[in-house]
Amino acid sequence: MTNPTAAMLVIGDEILSGRTRDANMHYLAGQLTERGIDLKEVRVVSDDREAIIAAVKALSETYDHVFTSGGIGPTHDDITADCIAAAFDDHIDVRDDARALLQAHYDRSGQDLNEARLRMARIPDSATLIENPVSTAPGFTLRNVHVMAGVPSVFQAMVASILPTLTGGAPLLSRTLPLMRGEGDLAGPLGKFAQEHPTLSVGSYPFQKDGIYGSNIVVRGTDAEELDAAMATLERLYSE
Amino acid sequence: MTNPTAAMLVIGDEILSGRTRDANMHYLAGQLTERGIDLKEVRVVSDDREAIIAAVKALSETYDHVFTSGGIGPTHDDITADCIAAAFDDHIDVRDDARALLQAHYDRSGQDLNEARLRMARIPDSATLIENPVSTAPGFTLRNVHVMAGVPSVFQAMVASILPTLTGGAPLLSRTLPLMRGEGDLAGPLGKFAQEHPTLSVGSYPFQKDGIYGSNIVVRGTDAEELDAAMATLERLYSE
Repeated sequence: MTNPTAAMLVIGDEILSGRTRDANMHYLAGQLTERGIDLKEVRVVSDDREAIIAAVKALSETYDHVFTSGGIGPTHDDITADCIAAAFDDHIDVRDDARALLQAHYDRSGQDLNEARLRMARIPDSATLIENPVSTAPGFTLRNVHVMAGVPSVFQAMVASILPTLTGGAPLLSRTLPLMRGEGDLAGPLGKFAQEHPTLSVGSYPFQKDGIYGSNIVVRGTDAEELDAAMATLERLYSE
Repeated sequence: MTNPTAAMLVIGDEILSGRTRDANMHYLAGQLTERGIDLKEVRVVSDDREAIIAAVKALSETYDHVFTSGGIGPTHDDITADCIAAAFDDHIDVRDDARALLQAHYDRSGQDLNEARLRMARIPDSATLIENPVSTAPGFTLRNVHVMAGVPSVFQAMVASILPTLTGGAPLLSRTLPLMRGEGDLAGPLGKFAQEHPTLSVGSYPFQKDGIYGSNIVVRGTDAEELDAAMATLERLYSE
């Protein structure tokens, strides 16, 4: 059985201009790996209607799940929900269930549910809501696309709401062998080792420590026993 | 005159598995913004031949420049150079100029230029080399694609080698007005302000500080005087 596949779509000019460093990609990658869902591709696009629609369509057709972050707040540059609806020819307007959540939230805090805040209740007709325990305004799932906020604390809460509802596969396990040798010294035997272990993913990641070049050899797979045996082979290989 | 456009392609399983947090995207975004080159899209793909080739072709056709990071080291999972050659039907093999650079480097350090390290001299026939003052093994430019290393210190050195050779546009300037109000309170007037300033990009980014919600209003443009005038208008708008 192969694991479900996923892509992520990060939406926001602030990432592409270098103003903000994205934190959600790294978080989602770790969560999906634990859940046994294989993150295959990430795209970052600007707050541009045509760019968002094209990316959502392409990723939704290619992967089992698409996770988006950003662009669902109350300001004029928050256009994600409308773009998702357009991508799937769905109707979108303020929806009663989302409006009720926001009304209760702003009643409690004594704030006005004004026209701008009401934008956050714009949800496509066919979508189901994703709970937001941090700041109430919900995300939503439409077909295989899960639409979430860009603020990291809210994004993480929404991921926690949606992930348990998705069927995962075997979690990808990983083992690391750090070696104080440059990649050029260990690459020959490592390529042979990788060929002899076709069910495992074998990578090498160079680092520098106190001016010395080293390499982390990372082996990934879903079977713990197979991984442990492979690591023992690898250690023998490089202790010679 | 509009600025040149760019895309970035990050290549590496270690980013998509959550093992490594990418640092190159944020760095390149800042550098391109300063140079007046508009970063429009970023994609992250795994060490998969078909995925790399498809992404390079799509981005190369759409944007003026494509910058790649990752996959040009000496190990079996470093397949970027061969994929770029395949994407453009170019021939690739160990090239004499790149081999000479590596030979001199390893002669100096008393190390062997073995078969694995020689992989780093595999350069497409039509490419020009990108200098690597950190660890010698060069990147390369083929057509409008600039191929660079994934290790951040090397990536940054290669960006410094290539950027001055590219024609930039007007640097994108930005001004920020921090307001201790939630986005929902300022969104109405902000949308009107954005409409009245069509040559500027107006964004709003929420934050939390000491439990209070605030928003950074960020205005971007290429004309400093226009920006300053717009910021004065914005301050008046929110001091009423």
